[in-house]
Amino acid sequence: VAKRLEKFKTTIFTQMSMLAIKHGAINLGQGFPNFDGPDFVKEAAIEAINAGKNQYARGFGVPELNSAIAERFLKDSGLHVDPDKEVTVTSGCTEAIAATVLGLINPGDEVILFAPFYDSYEATLSMAGANVKAITLCAPDFAVPLEELKAAVSNNTKAIMINTPHNPTGKMFTREELEFIATLCKKNDVLLFSDEVYDKLAFEADHISMASIPGMYERTVTMNSLGKTFSLTGWKIGWAIAPPHLTWGLRQAHSFLTFATCTPMQAAAAAALRAPDSYYEELKRDYSAKKAILLEGLEAAGFIVYPSSGTYFIMVDHTPFGFNNDIEFCEYLIREVGVVGIPPSVFYLNPEDGKNLVRFTFCKDEDTLRGAVERMKTKL
Amino acid sequence: VAKRLEKFKTTIFTQMSMLAIKHGAINLGQGFPNFDGPDFVKEAAIEAINAGKNQYARGFGVPELNSAIAERFLKDSGLHVDPDKEVTVTSGCTEAIAATVLGLINPGDEVILFAPFYDSYEATLSMAGANVKAITLCAPDFAVPLEELKAAVSNNTKAIMINTPHNPTGKMFTREELEFIATLCKKNDVLLFSDEVYDKLAFEADHISMASIPGMYERTVTMNSLGKTFSLTGWKIGWAIAPPHLTWGLRQAHSFLTFATCTPMQAAAAAALRAPDSYYEELKRDYSAKKAILLEGLEAAGFIVYPSSGTYFIMVDHTPFGFNNDIEFCEYLIREVGVVGIPPSVFYLNPEDGKNLVRFTFCKDEDTLRGAVERMKTKL
Ligand SMILES: CSCCC(=O)C(=O)O
Ligand SMILES: CSCCC(=O)C(=O)O
Repeated sequence: VAKRLEKFKTTIFTQMSMLAIKHGAINLGQGFPNFDGPDFVKEAAIEAINAGKNQYARGFGVPELNSAIAERFLKDSGLHVDPDKEVTVTSGCTEAIAATVLGLINPGDEVILFAPFYDSYEATLSMAGANVKAITLCAPDFAVPLEELKAAVSNNTKAIMINTPHNPTGKMFTREELEFIATLCKKNDVLLFSDEVYDKLAFEADHISMASIPGMYERTVTMNSLGKTFSLTGWKIGWAIAPPHLTWGLRQAHSFLTFATCTPMQAAAAAALRAPDSYYEELKRDYSAKKAILLEGLEAAGFIVYPSSGTYFIMVDHTPFGFNNDIEFCEYLIREVGVVGIPPSVFYLNPEDGKNLVRFTFCKDEDTLRGAVERMKTKL
Repeated sequence: VAKRLEKFKTTIFTQMSMLAIKHGAINLGQGFPNFDGPDFVKEAAIEAINAGKNQYARGFGVPELNSAIAERFLKDSGLHVDPDKEVTVTSGCTEAIAATVLGLINPGDEVILFAPFYDSYEATLSMAGANVKAITLCAPDFAVPLEELKAAVSNNTKAIMINTPHNPTGKMFTREELEFIATLCKKNDVLLFSDEVYDKLAFEADHISMASIPGMYERTVTMNSLGKTFSLTGWKIGWAIAPPHLTWGLRQAHSFLTFATCTPMQAAAAAALRAPDSYYEELKRDYSAKKAILLEGLEAAGFIVYPSSGTYFIMVDHTPFGFNNDIEFCEYLIREVGVVGIPPSVFYLNPEDGKNLVRFTFCKDEDTLRGAVERMKTKL
């Protein structure tokens, strides 16, 4: 294995999903629904396949999808973008992250992350030879330590990477936090990479897109995907929205990482993004009910539960159960309780910071959630 | 744009396909069929979508596809591989190339390519910080200059990358050439990356997989894809087969480049790979007829035509028409003749080496090929 990837292990998502299958445990680990996406989107995919939309797509996206993404972005953030020059379709948001980092970050550039972070951020930054600094968001509210962040920004800082709503904590960056970060970026000429894949799963507050903060669009790459919002995580349709000079760099990386993304699924994604508002409202209503079940269960089982305002994750503290760390706790949970959670220590530069925590997802049908809760209430 | 990508332009495939649309020219440029893939594969995709196979796949591939790939590899090369430990599904062969290079090559490693080469080879090697050496394959037969290759291998050589059948020349590496390269690899402890996406389009000779040369499997990454063989280039299903220690490196890169590949298309790909031999025979018969039309037409139009043994490409020399280089010739061809070819100078480290050449594809229906030939015969 090349040095750039030496320190990384098999992703925790793969590890835990394979353990779930092996032990027949209820999987509240990796964030994929155990119910299907909406029929109208699946029908659009089938229509595209039958219509012969099966050859290479335009590298940066099929025109109808680029347009649908631009329209949704206008609706959500009030910003007009050129679908051909500022929107790039990628093979999931994971590829958008890789293309953004490999396309825009040079070896030695400093990039600031907020820990805990989705593991691909650190890995792609390592591939790019970046120096990673991490600012830790701490329980119970995972607020941004503003002064610490300010002190971390140096002449060498090339970019700050955020994720709101935030996986794995469920935190949503507040307007004050976003504005503070924006001011730092503008003052120090820093880029902002914003992963917003959970934007439609904002329960306790309104999602705010960093690009919509005045003066930020021109230095921001906004990343999103189809999977979470449309319960089709396996389709791997993502995108990056950025001004033309940043789009150029990330498209160059994209051209040579995957060249283009699955054509018929792009056609279906275009149909999905034109869903009426009622679709999103219903999605949130469904997820609110699921969230209530998991929340109540985790509290009743004895965890210290931290508030989650967005995403389909809840972060808890397992210390009441007396284990040494998150890995040991999660192993016990799989083997003896029959439930899978994600041990979040891999999402920190310093694994110690996450050792008391576990992440659970509620993107499962209500019976599954009730089953998991029942096991935890009785066996923990 | 990051320095690693500074020297690269918009890929020639995107440039030429967009020009084709703009000028209403017949597109014999980028290698995608203008006819559809087989119904049984499309039906398998639709079945998978309807069956709810729409969530994240296992990162390295859905079990049924990994097994189908291993079975086909056994049939084609006589080698047994473990589907779970030696097969990795990627988002097209382009991603297999990127994952192999970023997962296994360190900055400063020397990698030898044969020019002309598919443009992503050089770009991904640049992303990895490799030193690229290119050995030029020259018309008319594009034979490997054995002594030149031998002299190019140094202590610092980490890998040799080959592509057989070869895009853009149509050359197939002979058994003698493969054995010569194999001996060099074994003697100098060099890895071999083998892109074999056109293996089923071998017309004048039998395809030989480098991994099947004795002693080579353990140092070889064999890459392939669904798109060319099943006329579904837009589905972006590729894979890499390699011994576990090489698979580890490329899987780590894959995990963070795309994480996983489109689930329902993987299910369909598994069905495709289990096609009876008659499917492949018919494919070759169809393509032989198409090839004959293009070949005759290019000769009649006045090109110097080089023999193509495999792939769906034919390389020709345009000097009889008196243009300065391939770009000028291709521009004239689009504007005045209404046909798109690919100018191959971008596939050389030294663009001068390709300036007399043009590549045409015959992966189009016969009427389209006849139309293009007619235009070239009358207007060139
Ligand atoms: C490839 S896992 C992507 C993110 C997610 O679903 C998770 O964090 O569980
Ligand atoms: C993304 S283009 C892939 C290869 C090909 O089809 C070509 O060389 O034309």
